[in-house]
Amino acid sequence: MTGARFGALEAGGTKFVCAVGAGRELAAEMRIATTTPGETLAAAIAFFQAHAPLAAVGVASFGPIDLDPRSPTHGFITTTPKPGWASTDIVGPLRRALGVPVGWDTDVNAAAVAEQRWGAARDAAGVVYVTVGTGIGGGAVVNGRPVHGLVHPEMGHARIPHDRAADPFAGACPHHGDCWEGLAAAPALAARWGRPPETLPDDHPAWALEARYLALGLVNVILTLSPPRVVLGGGVLARAGLLERVRGEVTALIGGYVRSPEIVAPLLGDRSGVLGALALAQDLARR
Amino acid sequence: MTGARFGALEAGGTKFVCAVGAGRELAAEMRIATTTPGETLAAAIAFFQAHAPLAAVGVASFGPIDLDPRSPTHGFITTTPKPGWASTDIVGPLRRALGVPVGWDTDVNAAAVAEQRWGAARDAAGVVYVTVGTGIGGGAVVNGRPVHGLVHPEMGHARIPHDRAADPFAGACPHHGDCWEGLAAAPALAARWGRPPETLPDDHPAWALEARYLALGLVNVILTLSPPRVVLGGGVLARAGLLERVRGEVTALIGGYVRSPEIVAPLLGDRSGVLGALALAQDLARR
Repeated sequence: MTGARFGALEAGGTKFVCAVGAGRELAAEMRIATTTPGETLAAAIAFFQAHAPLAAVGVASFGPIDLDPRSPTHGFITTTPKPGWASTDIVGPLRRALGVPVGWDTDVNAAAVAEQRWGAARDAAGVVYVTVGTGIGGGAVVNGRPVHGLVHPEMGHARIPHDRAADPFAGACPHHGDCWEGLAAAPALAARWGRPPETLPDDHPAWALEARYLALGLVNVILTLSPPRVVLGGGVLARAGLLERVRGEVTALIGGYVRSPEIVAPLLGDRSGVLGALALAQDLARR
Repeated sequence: MTGARFGALEAGGTKFVCAVGAGRELAAEMRIATTTPGETLAAAIAFFQAHAPLAAVGVASFGPIDLDPRSPTHGFITTTPKPGWASTDIVGPLRRALGVPVGWDTDVNAAAVAEQRWGAARDAAGVVYVTVGTGIGGGAVVNGRPVHGLVHPEMGHARIPHDRAADPFAGACPHHGDCWEGLAAAPALAARWGRPPETLPDDHPAWALEARYLALGLVNVILTLSPPRVVLGGGVLARAGLLERVRGEVTALIGGYVRSPEIVAPLLGDRSGVLGALALAQDLARR
């Protein structure tokens, strides 16, 4: 490995993935179970200290998080329902302990950056990244940078048409009931059909409904952002044929009104978060 | 008027507004009925020629339009249903006749630029502009520039929840039926209630439903783009109290999950299009 080395931290609700790398290559990696903030951050800091010197560290975090550089809680996880993690400073302890600049964004914005730099949107001028698993998360790169705004995208909580005659399931989101995530993330599938979604056969009607719901949410994102590329991944998309069905539904819903972007699988798979964190660190050094 | 003078053209489906200006001041203005492309563009060109020299001209156009600088049809109105105007080159004739650079964007992106530069989003780091009239159009400035992407935003055609038990109206959009515009633009109000919306009294149930539909569409835009400010205007919003009701519905729908932006009326009113065109021209000169 040549050139400056960077630290990358994918801060997830169940595990923290710590790595060091240069370019797009990761040279060392450690996974830590997400326990308490103090314990988990201390283990991450120890990992990065053991790999000093690092030019910068990037963090791709679960959220919601505070991205406003003028805010007194910039660098914090803010209102997460995860016990013990609401109002937790992530960037501050890392910066103080390591003495390097710390890049900071949502896991899904970081994944969007990584898929555009090294993955399935390499040749695209912008990208939306959507992951469908225990929740639905979306990140986006527009005009060359991740979308922040007042907070950051929370696409999973958008409202989509829900025909209660065809699907009486009330929705699984504790905040919004039948929002996109409440209708189409893995817990919604499990609750609607009474079994883990991975045990539903390919020809189960669950998958036609799932394709329709995923397309309804994607169409709204497409009509709002007009992304040149959509990268659609996450555990639920591991189902054979589902991505193709989503594509067909999106085309039908747009109805030829505007051009629709290619919708593709991630190329970086479960590396998009940690590679996104690496990209955030490298972007700091470029400024 | 001191300094360089710029031309501004708001190209609308019913009228073209031509103006010249410097800074944010308009010095001369002419309105032309939108007839055939040849006749309408010739009148616009004659206006700008009479006010030469101009440093650049900006066009804020109805659409959909082609914004891709690498496309052979860049500068064209593309798939509009307006008779005679599909596949019409707008930028080419202006540039050839006037010999100056021509800025080019959607009417709503241009309005977003103008409201951020001179209007209701002056102090905001980004803005979404939504207008509700004969259709619903949305533009956005993200990371300092209007959102283009593969095409440009067409927010009015997003899908929102539609409870057919409470509102059996099938929707008025010829492309999508009960999309946002199909449920909540002025023609939908007129068709649902059987009378022009401006004749509906303030206490008619139409307005509670309208506030709900407008909020459902706005919440999705907010959760996708996290705009620091939303500017909401257009003829339908002239109804007393409607903006306040939309604000209340948006707050209820987000449910405290993330911070919600201020939703405000336009400050530039029906000048936002032509001032947006002026801003596009000035941005060309800055590059």
